[in-house]
Amino acid sequence: MSANLNVKYLDCLEACQACLIDCKVCLTKMAGMESDNDCPYCCIQCIEVLEANIGLMAADSKFSKEMCALCAKVCEYCAEHCEAHDHEHCQRCAESCRKCAEECRKMAA
Amino acid sequence: MSANLNVKYLDCLEACQACLIDCKVCLTKMAGMESDNDCPYCCIQCIEVLEANIGLMAADSKFSKEMCALCAKVCEYCAEHCEAHDHEHCQRCAESCRKCAEECRKMAA
Amino acid sequence: MSANLNVKYLDCLEACQACLIDCKVCLTKMAGMESDNDCPYCCIQCIEVLEANIGLMAADSKFSKEMCALCAKVCEYCAEHCEAHDHEHCQRCAESCRKCAEECRKMAA
Amino acid sequence: MSANLNVKYLDCLEACQACLIDCKVCLTKMAGMESDNDCPYCCIQCIEVLEANIGLMAADSKFSKEMCALCAKVCEYCAEHCEAHDHEHCQRCAESCRKCAEECRKMAA
Repeated sequence: MSANLNVKYLDCLEACQACLIDCKVCLTKMAGMESDNDCPYCCIQCIEVLEANIGLMAADSKFSKEMCALCAKVCEYCAEHCEAHDHEHCQRCAESCRKCAEECRKMAA
Repeated sequence: MSANLNVKYLDCLEACQACLIDCKVCLTKMAGMESDNDCPYCCIQCIEVLEANIGLMAADSKFSKEMCALCAKVCEYCAEHCEAHDHEHCQRCAESCRKCAEECRKMAA
Repeated sequence: MSANLNVKYLDCLEACQACLIDCKVCLTKMAGMESDNDCPYCCIQCIEVLEANIGLMAADSKFSKEMCALCAKVCEYCAEHCEAHDHEHCQRCAESCRKCAEECRKMAA
Repeated sequence: MSANLNVKYLDCLEACQACLIDCKVCLTKMAGMESDNDCPYCCIQCIEVLEANIGLMAADSKFSKEMCALCAKVCEYCAEHCEAHDHEHCQRCAESCRKCAEECRKMAA
């Protein structure tokens, strides 16, 4: 991981990066597929917040805590919807969102 | 539009910004809906390229021409699929993509 | 502006889009230039939050209010630093940030 | 790495993600600092292209090859400028850019 990145962000940043890819894959796989809940609408929103959160952590921003708190909420919401679908990409997305939410809560504390 | 933005980008930048919102709205409205073609999968891809294209133009990057050329292709592909759907958001997205592709081709020339 | 975009976001979305370009231009123009305050470091952070805010509004997300509240804070912080610089791009960026903060506060209310 | 991600992208995606963080950190650390070359202006451009490239690979887009080819060019340009600076963040950024360019060229082939 990057030189000069504030090490306190390391676990959260990695969780966000993994979650971002899993959300993008889930969104892609669900595109054009009928859904009975908010997946993949939740992934669209999660992607937006994750990208900003990654950017603020990389910038060692004083706004990171507040963004992490919001990111945790959006990840939990996304996990709830994706985990209700049996597709492997939805299950993986939900799992990544849960882990990411946990790391974001630690950062926000 | 922004002070110190290179004015040559003005029309293309505005077309890309409008197209970006129309693609995001189309993607959102199509989320969870069955589709018989690449819409909204095409919107996912178009969004990625539009965001980079906007960023490179705002930065007056020497890579803008090449990115505009790629953006024009992705916009045409997106327009072809969205315009086959009767939804207002798909029709609007297709129209924005056509206009954006045209402006991008001018920039790439 | 986009078909099917929730009209309540219109003013805020336009303010965010203008502010995003002005921040990107300010960051670009300041790159490699010495600075006596947080400009353009503030622009880096503002860009991240603006992009997420635009995305959540385009998606008509229930998290938009909270993101708008955070975006207003980051925009005010960015305006404070950019307005202290005489460059036209900094003045423009500060002005856009103030306007954007105002629209974001309305959305967050 | 993500379930259902096309495995052919794995190495390139990881290189792009690492490079993205290193570019964001380099840009942040260089903000407000005088520079004798294009660093951190090159990082601004690299970030835009990397984000799109990551997104297109996650979406298994048919435009990935072309984007990877452009990304390789921007990464090489960024490496040339950052490696001329002795700062640890610049050296790291240059190293990540070289590795990313190599992976992108493989994808583009």
